[in-house]
Amino acid sequence: MIIIGERLNTSRKAVRAAVTARDADAIAAETRRQLDAGAHVIDVNAGGDPENETADLLWMIAGALGAAPASLCLDSSAPSTLRAALDEILKLRPDAPNRPGGVPWVMINSISGEDERYRGVLPLLKEYNAAAVALCLDDEGMPDNREKRAAAGLKLLERLDADGVPPGRVWLDPLVVPVGVNPAAGADLLGAIRDIRARAPEARFVCGVSNVSFGLPDRALLNRTFLAMAIEAGLDAVIADPLNDELMRTIHAAEALTGRDEFCAEYIQDYRRRTAR
Amino acid sequence: MIIIGERLNTSRKAVRAAVTARDADAIAAETRRQLDAGAHVIDVNAGGDPENETADLLWMIAGALGAAPASLCLDSSAPSTLRAALDEILKLRPDAPNRPGGVPWVMINSISGEDERYRGVLPLLKEYNAAAVALCLDDEGMPDNREKRAAAGLKLLERLDADGVPPGRVWLDPLVVPVGVNPAAGADLLGAIRDIRARAPEARFVCGVSNVSFGLPDRALLNRTFLAMAIEAGLDAVIADPLNDELMRTIHAAEALTGRDEFCAEYIQDYRRRTAR
Repeated sequence: MIIIGERLNTSRKAVRAAVTARDADAIAAETRRQLDAGAHVIDVNAGGDPENETADLLWMIAGALGAAPASLCLDSSAPSTLRAALDEILKLRPDAPNRPGGVPWVMINSISGEDERYRGVLPLLKEYNAAAVALCLDDEGMPDNREKRAAAGLKLLERLDADGVPPGRVWLDPLVVPVGVNPAAGADLLGAIRDIRARAPEARFVCGVSNVSFGLPDRALLNRTFLAMAIEAGLDAVIADPLNDELMRTIHAAEALTGRDEFCAEYIQDYRRRTAR
Repeated sequence: MIIIGERLNTSRKAVRAAVTARDADAIAAETRRQLDAGAHVIDVNAGGDPENETADLLWMIAGALGAAPASLCLDSSAPSTLRAALDEILKLRPDAPNRPGGVPWVMINSISGEDERYRGVLPLLKEYNAAAVALCLDDEGMPDNREKRAAAGLKLLERLDADGVPPGRVWLDPLVVPVGVNPAAGADLLGAIRDIRARAPEARFVCGVSNVSFGLPDRALLNRTFLAMAIEAGLDAVIADPLNDELMRTIHAAEALTGRDEFCAEYIQDYRRRTAR
């Protein structure tokens, strides 16, 4: 399970303040905190201020990479911003693409089946050998049931493969919808993951879970409970706050329970680490 | 989701003491506590002392029914004890079998495909129109993979149906095995539930979850995380401690997330009840 830490986002007040004040220490500290808590990739998002997004994002990248040679997940809808960000990483860490292991050197968050976004982001994925968060929607809009959701995911996976981005670099995001709005949304999403895996066993999945609880009380409980179900359905990565202890404990428990953590070695290690604090 | 409260069990020291001292108030209080916490059925188990099991169980039943007209789950492997217990309920509450709604008037815990147990318990199920917890094993022993587990469940369901106990009165228990012993045990069980449902959509499922965490630290976390997954797989009832707040919150969350609790009405009500305390 790849944990993509979501805290370096200017939609958070403290991060916006740090970016405005160019407080590099705050960015470095937030990066280290997330890595220490178990994040494998750090999402960076400088949205909210389109005029300064590129400059802010490059500055955040420098701050994050100054703290640690982490893999980053570049979170922007603007291809030009993404390209500048990719170049910035390569300038600061020319060795970044040689990172070994199962974690991509960089992820682009996100591509989708929407034509404009697809055509804007595809060249970057190819040129930089980057991995992608791929949203399961297209110009028809958000799929509103299990079958359409699975079809949108499979179509996107095939289209990317045909265009030179193999499934191993694609993390499908089936897009979590609030169960308070559509009671079938949770079951649809989990079902779509299972349907896609049955047809394309090589498919990988990522999601952010917090949207599932929108409008409901005790959101953290719903989020971590849904995450456990999604891990069982086949989730490979999650965009989440690694400082959320209950959420991280649930991830370790879910991996132990589904046989991904053989003989529960990581679960036990995580338990010892927490209780030794 | 039917919650079968597991606390009235003489394997618990306090219950054994209450039974030995014939402290009816303690049994009544434990019954009320479980019902107040959300139990729909009260499991009663007087095992551990074979010579006195029947007398102890009848006394416990009187204590429980003295507190409230609850549905009971009779937890014994001895057909003669079960028969005496069924008669005792009918003596104390002749109206018990007329209970309306989806909760059975009485459950027998348990029948299985083991020949002796099957032949001992089957007549009771038929004669008393009782529901059964049906363990997915037979004289071949415990199934050791997903396919065998599903096959054992389907076979038992069909055998009971052929012998006059329809699927609507059978709760299959796929028997939870510790993941610390067999890393595939969790996935096998959830897979078996899905396989049986695909072949027999009318099948119902019950389990106790605590065995999944045997030998591991932070068992409560593993138990409730596994329960969430099992609810998503199709669990209909659980044998658990309704006074375990975290577990009950997880059940409500899992039902909201899987569309069983439309527009999350019960989830919100449960949240309000807890926060209003």
